[in-house]
Amino acid sequence: MTAPDQPRSADDAAFEADVFARACASRPVLQTITGRWGGLTLAALGESPYRFSALRRRVDGVSERMLSQTLQELERDGFVHREVQETIPPKVEYSLTPLGQRVAARLTDLIELVESEMPAVRVAQNAYDRR
Amino acid sequence: MTAPDQPRSADDAAFEADVFARACASRPVLQTITGRWGGLTLAALGESPYRFSALRRRVDGVSERMLSQTLQELERDGFVHREVQETIPPKVEYSLTPLGQRVAARLTDLIELVESEMPAVRVAQNAYDRR
Repeated sequence: MTAPDQPRSADDAAFEADVFARACASRPVLQTITGRWGGLTLAALGESPYRFSALRRRVDGVSERMLSQTLQELERDGFVHREVQETIPPKVEYSLTPLGQRVAARLTDLIELVESEMPAVRVAQNAYDRR
Repeated sequence: MTAPDQPRSADDAAFEADVFARACASRPVLQTITGRWGGLTLAALGESPYRFSALRRRVDGVSERMLSQTLQELERDGFVHREVQETIPPKVEYSLTPLGQRVAARLTDLIELVESEMPAVRVAQNAYDRR
């Protein structure tokens, strides 16, 4: 906690991140990770490295443009490594960094919980909709 | 895995959810949990039950309308319990269901990782932006 008369600088915030604070730099990072495509992309790369087109097939429904933008954000935040292989034609492979692997592991825990609890969620949804 | 000539019914999908499949019912549920406000709302309610106005202060930046909609979605999916207390004036309190507690615990793991790794994320962002 910091007294209200001692506003924290951006540097302080880096060391005491708080996603509940609207201006905290951790919020957009969390948003990239858990956004519409970021979470699925990280979880897919948690299975294995992928080339772009194979990754796009795995993350069913994502457009080329959205996958490209998502990968750029994840690379900028340090979660994804992009490697150009000097073959003819060149191949580009995406993989997780060590930090990305830790994030993907926690995301996968969350996804597996949701998948396994879908019968309970459906029961709740049906009860709510019958009200 | 199911052979392509045996399309799975919605009921089958409930027992073998796969968020990677674009039509899977688990995808919108994951989206609610990890969406712009759903994740923060669940994480806040993981701290304690809240009344609406206090919750809105905790989830800094959310509008009344968005918090209300988020809570409805989380209640419909069975993660949040809404209780009207028969006082004058009536009070409405929101808390997590047992399933919501399990989801919030995994979300909190993810949020704490992101918060603690923000210095590494900033280093990666600065390196990327200098390219």
